[in-house]
Amino acid sequence: MPYAPFDWIDAEARGRAAAGLVRTLRPRGAEPEPLDLASNDYLGLTRHPEVTAAAAGAARRWGAGATGSRLVTGTTALHAELERELAAFCGFEAALVLSSGYAANLAALTALSGRGSLIVSDAGNHASIVDGCRLSRAETAVVPHADAEAVAKALGAHEGRALAVTDSVFSVDGDAAPLPALAEVCRAANAALLVDDAHGLGVLGDGGRGALAAAGLAGNDGVVATLTLSKSLGSQGGAVLGPARVIDHLINTARTFIFDTGLAPASAGGALGALGVLRREPERAARAREVAAALYTRLTAAGLTAVRPDAAVVSVRAPSADAAVNWAADCRSAGMAVGCFRPPSVPDGVSRLRLTARADLTEEQITAAVDTIVATAPRQAGARVS
Amino acid sequence: MPYAPFDWIDAEARGRAAAGLVRTLRPRGAEPEPLDLASNDYLGLTRHPEVTAAAAGAARRWGAGATGSRLVTGTTALHAELERELAAFCGFEAALVLSSGYAANLAALTALSGRGSLIVSDAGNHASIVDGCRLSRAETAVVPHADAEAVAKALGAHEGRALAVTDSVFSVDGDAAPLPALAEVCRAANAALLVDDAHGLGVLGDGGRGALAAAGLAGNDGVVATLTLSKSLGSQGGAVLGPARVIDHLINTARTFIFDTGLAPASAGGALGALGVLRREPERAARAREVAAALYTRLTAAGLTAVRPDAAVVSVRAPSADAAVNWAADCRSAGMAVGCFRPPSVPDGVSRLRLTARADLTEEQITAAVDTIVATAPRQAGARVS
Repeated sequence: MPYAPFDWIDAEARGRAAAGLVRTLRPRGAEPEPLDLASNDYLGLTRHPEVTAAAAGAARRWGAGATGSRLVTGTTALHAELERELAAFCGFEAALVLSSGYAANLAALTALSGRGSLIVSDAGNHASIVDGCRLSRAETAVVPHADAEAVAKALGAHEGRALAVTDSVFSVDGDAAPLPALAEVCRAANAALLVDDAHGLGVLGDGGRGALAAAGLAGNDGVVATLTLSKSLGSQGGAVLGPARVIDHLINTARTFIFDTGLAPASAGGALGALGVLRREPERAARAREVAAALYTRLTAAGLTAVRPDAAVVSVRAPSADAAVNWAADCRSAGMAVGCFRPPSVPDGVSRLRLTARADLTEEQITAAVDTIVATAPRQAGARVS
Repeated sequence: MPYAPFDWIDAEARGRAAAGLVRTLRPRGAEPEPLDLASNDYLGLTRHPEVTAAAAGAARRWGAGATGSRLVTGTTALHAELERELAAFCGFEAALVLSSGYAANLAALTALSGRGSLIVSDAGNHASIVDGCRLSRAETAVVPHADAEAVAKALGAHEGRALAVTDSVFSVDGDAAPLPALAEVCRAANAALLVDDAHGLGVLGDGGRGALAAAGLAGNDGVVATLTLSKSLGSQGGAVLGPARVIDHLINTARTFIFDTGLAPASAGGALGALGVLRREPERAARAREVAAALYTRLTAAGLTAVRPDAAVVSVRAPSADAAVNWAADCRSAGMAVGCFRPPSVPDGVSRLRLTARADLTEEQITAAVDTIVATAPRQAGARVS
């Protein structure tokens, strides 16, 4: 028999090609895209001169890497400063920085659950939450999207330790979780509430302090947040925020914290720089929401189907995966970058364009973006194609 | 009932305290430790001026973050260059860069297995491999450490797709996997071989090309490697190397690739800078191995029990977790950083000092390190305490 342990991969690749679902990487250049509505750089900070200078300065001062696990040599005073600053900004007692938001969700879910416990997870939660549930060895109840009553019911059916987990703003459709209602049902069931604020930080709450601050839940005893440093803060990394005892527990037990190299100093420095800009220019948060609202209003007025944005993500329906891909390609040809989400990246199988409303988009750019999206819309998407 | 969903954490914390197993973070300053045998900066590159300049320059040129998933806006020409360079340096057809070595292992294991398939995993494998197995939904057979016959037996008992996975150099004891024998049994069973070369890259093989190059296995049809950019390359991130079809398959299916933000440009740039230095100064790899051999020879000559190093990690046994902690603290008081591994970070429950043999340690530093370790050794460790 010939040695061919990967032949099955070719068959899967043919299946993807036949279904029009092949993904390829398109390396971009160093210059910003002329019109970027695809990145998660919600506040336009990733190229802000203070942010890049903070990242560059941290690499020069602290080295290009953290050199080890946070528990060995990988914790610098810069990491500690970032953790204090994140906790203070968002209104939590303590914070722990990890190398990605993905790692932060795996850490929080595995460390705060375990065999015999229950995790109640929204059906629309991000892949990193789904994977955290799978790794946790807890029983996981997946409940209908944004449905606090379903969470209450699932929690009521379980004896013992329990935790409900949700995105604050769902990545695909940009809609928000019902956080006050979720906090109430968790309190009634003595369950913890874990909220991934990846798309809320920098956009929601006073000055961008996040969805939990906006809901008056930041710093509450039973509430833990995960964050990413790679969206509004323009850098890389993730964090868990919560009561100090929860953070200490993660330091002692979370495998994706203990067995990973610490975040690179440049990324910690970049995130700190971005927090500094955001504290000085809190209006960036409201501007991102305004841009999202403007995009939604104008696109739906033109006959497209979109989800009313609760933060800075605007999701526009496409009639099929192929149509979404072609639509995004036509936008790109017109000089505009948009996200294109299709199976298997979407939990419901519905393909869409995903637009991000960056705070630094000008009125002219918003108009140009709407014009391009409408002009390139597939006929079935409902746009008024002239 | 008071709302107290995290009270169980306090009980666990008390248990850890009673067992002497509490971990705390010790932020370090920006200056290098006077004598560092704890970091994984094997080649001494993380503070190399070319490496930090490459990291800083990348942040300034490309921004502090990648701004999105590699599939949306997160792939820059810098990422593509790093992938070409990693593949060429290590002798593989293609490479894919992720935000950490942890993410790389989760990606490779989940994408290359799946329900109905078998993963055969060495009992000493790293936590990220263990978690990859758990996430994969494959059947996992954990086999005795470094035992190719046990792998053959496990593979022989399974019909259908199979993969064997091992660290090339085991993180805790610094010993090497029997790669040629493993490749042979995989070939016989038509199983893939996945090797985590986190501790081999930069240290083993001609000019540091890694354990698979050293074993003549790099680029083989059924062989896939995972790497970290945070050890010998002094930066942050991870990579998967293998046949182009395997890399394409990961781009299309690996959740920790698809749903994570791309690696920060500064970390990609830093790793590229380190590869450049290593190509120009290939002697760094052999020097790291020499330093490890010198540490081993002198420490065992002094009566300590250590594992003969196959790469740049030297593991010295401690009689207990408490003794290991005190030993490491005494070394630190004497101005020297060493790793201290103890439960639950060690698969066998044995506590040890973990020394890393950096290529840039001088003869004087090696002598000082050995003197300090021997002078501070607990009596039961067997050192000739005067």
